[in-house]
Amino acid sequence: MNRQDCFRELLGIKVLEVKEGYSRVSLKVAREHTNFLGATHGGAIFTLADCAFAEAVNFGDTRAMAVQVSINFLRPSSEGDVLMAEASKVSEGKTFALYNITISREGKLVALFSGLAYKLPAEK
Amino acid sequence: MNRQDCFRELLGIKVLEVKEGYSRVSLKVAREHTNFLGATHGGAIFTLADCAFAEAVNFGDTRAMAVQVSINFLRPSSEGDVLMAEASKVSEGKTFALYNITISREGKLVALFSGLAYKLPAEK
Amino acid sequence: MNRQDCFRELLGIKVLEVKEGYSRVSLKVAREHTNFLGATHGGAIFTLADCAFAEAVNFGDTRAMAVQVSINFLRPSSEGDVLMAEASKVSEGKTFALYNITISREGKLVALFSGLAYKLPAEK
Amino acid sequence: MNRQDCFRELLGIKVLEVKEGYSRVSLKVAREHTNFLGATHGGAIFTLADCAFAEAVNFGDTRAMAVQVSINFLRPSSEGDVLMAEASKVSEGKTFALYNITISREGKLVALFSGLAYKLPAEK
Repeated sequence: MNRQDCFRELLGIKVLEVKEGYSRVSLKVAREHTNFLGATHGGAIFTLADCAFAEAVNFGDTRAMAVQVSINFLRPSSEGDVLMAEASKVSEGKTFALYNITISREGKLVALFSGLAYKLPAEK
Repeated sequence: MNRQDCFRELLGIKVLEVKEGYSRVSLKVAREHTNFLGATHGGAIFTLADCAFAEAVNFGDTRAMAVQVSINFLRPSSEGDVLMAEASKVSEGKTFALYNITISREGKLVALFSGLAYKLPAEK
Repeated sequence: MNRQDCFRELLGIKVLEVKEGYSRVSLKVAREHTNFLGATHGGAIFTLADCAFAEAVNFGDTRAMAVQVSINFLRPSSEGDVLMAEASKVSEGKTFALYNITISREGKLVALFSGLAYKLPAEK
Repeated sequence: MNRQDCFRELLGIKVLEVKEGYSRVSLKVAREHTNFLGATHGGAIFTLADCAFAEAVNFGDTRAMAVQVSINFLRPSSEGDVLMAEASKVSEGKTFALYNITISREGKLVALFSGLAYKLPAEK
């Protein structure tokens, strides 16, 4: 991964921890992350979780891409909140990896993201 | 909607058309929307579709919030591409509205977003 | 496909039409398909749609298996109703095929099923 | 719940345990549950998980209905296997309840089901 993750930088998402099958990232919600109702935009919450997913699933030599994601929005959040996304591997085979990512604020669940990644065949 | 959609502005998403049960928005992919592979970040694609969804589902006096979204990523896109998201109502009742949002580039499908919104009871 | 689809036969699902990228199947809801509320069981509705999906995606020489499905339940149905499931291809590449399946009763949408299939490499 | 769950009985699904926020059900896969490939039909796996979901979410006086489900199929299973589905509450508010249901065979994950239920207003 010699390239920058520019979109992650645009949002100000911080990578806190990455290890095999796991990662943890965070975002301090600013006004620029909010929607017309003043709540955190669904796209910012999705992006936070997607960054956790990408870090965990691409750990080491694996290269994988998201093919399908389901996300449930459970609680609103707003400017000033610190959101934490934590990715945990549910299952991994030769071809697919499935991760659950929880997005929470002070330990309370804000959203739940379930992502399926397709593992790219290794380049020779 | 007297507040700004700040996150939409941060990304540079343009609202092209909104009417009952329908909307169309677009994004010109810049370097800031890309991930470490140089492709459009999944979070940027989701956000584009989510903006189309929000515009269509909140048209007129209705206030609704996304409770669940499923998204399939079908084709990569990258810097310089113009992505179009088009939201179409699938079903609407008293309590829920279901929308399909297609994200495409030059008529080719890049992603498919299916969003379920819960309609908030009207304020008195 | 020299084997029987035993589960489809147990339910009494009829295959009405199959062609490239498309299929149509039906079920007459009997008491045995209902849940404790007297409505058609979600599992019966899913199965009907899954049969349409399997027929369409395995048309010709392709062998594919469902890896992820999202289903929205929109309207109840009950004993005596005739449910129709119609599968239409949304997108197909070398590795994946995405289908939308509508489940309807007298033209009204009962449920919407979105299925992602992984295409098995051809046996030699 | 004075009515029978006829579809559950048709399949031979057994309810093993139900308590607040949790349930466990099982199915011994017979030939009648298989598809044309000889594997357990996706519809039978979904139904097993949906029964666990329904038992847990309707525990006590609550009446709720599934509005959206996402399911990932991870491993095949076949005739003779005993499948166990275990439902656990992820989140519950006034209006919605979200459950994860794991489907496993001898402790190995066969499928993962994530279900969103809408809680019906109490009758007076």
